[in-house]
Amino acid sequence: MINKLVVKIQKTNAPIVVGLDPMLNYIPAHIQKKAFQEYGETLEGAAEAVWQFNKEIVDKTYDIIPAVKPQIAMYEQFGIPGMTAFKKTVDYCREKDLVVIGDIKRGDIGSTSAAYAVGHLGKVKVGDKTYAGFDEDFATLNPYMGADSIQPFIEVCREENKGIFVLVKTSNPSSGDFQDQLVSGRPLYELVGEKVAEWGETHMGDTYSYVGAVVGATYPEMGKILRKIMPKAYILVPGYGAQGGQGKDLVHFFNKDGLGAIVNSSRGIIASYKQEKYAKFGPENFGDSARQAALDMIEDISSALER
Amino acid sequence: MINKLVVKIQKTNAPIVVGLDPMLNYIPAHIQKKAFQEYGETLEGAAEAVWQFNKEIVDKTYDIIPAVKPQIAMYEQFGIPGMTAFKKTVDYCREKDLVVIGDIKRGDIGSTSAAYAVGHLGKVKVGDKTYAGFDEDFATLNPYMGADSIQPFIEVCREENKGIFVLVKTSNPSSGDFQDQLVSGRPLYELVGEKVAEWGETHMGDTYSYVGAVVGATYPEMGKILRKIMPKAYILVPGYGAQGGQGKDLVHFFNKDGLGAIVNSSRGIIASYKQEKYAKFGPENFGDSARQAALDMIEDISSALER
Repeated sequence: MINKLVVKIQKTNAPIVVGLDPMLNYIPAHIQKKAFQEYGETLEGAAEAVWQFNKEIVDKTYDIIPAVKPQIAMYEQFGIPGMTAFKKTVDYCREKDLVVIGDIKRGDIGSTSAAYAVGHLGKVKVGDKTYAGFDEDFATLNPYMGADSIQPFIEVCREENKGIFVLVKTSNPSSGDFQDQLVSGRPLYELVGEKVAEWGETHMGDTYSYVGAVVGATYPEMGKILRKIMPKAYILVPGYGAQGGQGKDLVHFFNKDGLGAIVNSSRGIIASYKQEKYAKFGPENFGDSARQAALDMIEDISSALER
Repeated sequence: MINKLVVKIQKTNAPIVVGLDPMLNYIPAHIQKKAFQEYGETLEGAAEAVWQFNKEIVDKTYDIIPAVKPQIAMYEQFGIPGMTAFKKTVDYCREKDLVVIGDIKRGDIGSTSAAYAVGHLGKVKVGDKTYAGFDEDFATLNPYMGADSIQPFIEVCREENKGIFVLVKTSNPSSGDFQDQLVSGRPLYELVGEKVAEWGETHMGDTYSYVGAVVGATYPEMGKILRKIMPKAYILVPGYGAQGGQGKDLVHFFNKDGLGAIVNSSRGIIASYKQEKYAKFGPENFGDSARQAALDMIEDISSALER
């Protein structure tokens, strides 16, 4: 799957991922209204609005992007109907041949980690049969519990040719509370980065590892160092756009082959119709607005990489 | 809810929580067979087996224990039907007046963290209505992303009188990979513990905080230190029994008032019928076996506390 991701990035010439994080207030009124007419102002109604919104975004962008990243919290908040919308979204994106990165940030140990791994990337056994619960291509993971929390995922990834992105340095203001603490004079996130590189050696694709890392666009200097520590790890970069990151900040997240990083934007694309810059599209054409915002993001990053 | 937890622990004289982590191989053949006859060897069949298993464990223990801790990974692995079994379990335990600790170990930032918080502990808005997605009483959280990941939960907890347990020092062998790294000569978990105490001050119950901590039974010396760093935090202690912890190792997790800690056992109770010690019950009477194992655990901890 890491090989597929690389090929798709090369084909589209777009090292970006569209974050499908559909907060209700991103979803235009006409979509919400229609969903509520059919299902009422219920969890089912909210889930239907989320699904219709996602479908339109995907239909209008799937040919120009390599990957999507649904943020499961935005679905989980709507209980079972929300989780069903998550699964429908994952399935639909895979039908459209998009690489699906489940932004689930799970982290647990032993048999519990294995249960998350089979549920999201692998197949669970029921009697003599096997089933894929959610079936994303990649999952994001939290490393706080150590190797015990990552290894069961790597085992499932080997069987399924799937991959993970481990949180190393996150994009939020308080990411430094623990990640930046100095251990023998070096920040903790560097140690985590070293572990990611080490784990990555055990499950390599053609040129990059199935074990990637998350490093926020908001910390470009740290990205530069982490790039060197984890030369074969694909870096998933959140924090572009709405959180403050720009194309020019991102060049050091990439390797000299022009690969090695994939930059996420959520709000900046899926809710772009709310920005003055894209207001001309109007809420009715939020999908076209998303396409234009994605094209602009690709251009911003490409031209920064060319310089 | 922390006050309710304390009262229930005092009433039952049982500072324990039963971990509802139903792996399929814990579930006796007769339960699986019946579920598969009704739903086939499907995700729905697995979910039904999980639910029937849980119901029997709860029916046989609810009067002698204060709380349960369903581990969501064990449900999530079965996709949507599994999540539905999780919700049914949470609802049923609350009907039985048990305190429900959702072992979800979520951790994300800003609006994403808020989405997890409303989904698991609070209520989500849909139009003019509000709904509780999963509705646990407490949730476990991962602190790696810093204060940004915890604050949105504390806000929801204030509104709902609910609480959280933040991972500080976990029970697994590789928990030391990052948690034990020395920061200015002190392990990282102590810093996390200090933050837990600080966050806890902002949402206090009568004697204990709504912000608790997770510290593994397998590290009693660290528990002793963390107890002092976080005097008002309830400590949720995994790792008893199957993972190696014993009553005598646990005394320092408690305060002098005999309170301040709640010890989890999962496999050691719910799958006790598989142990030689409880073999006399047989698979048919796994619920009675669970009750006896819970009583034995209460006795083990109580007598250690008395000494």
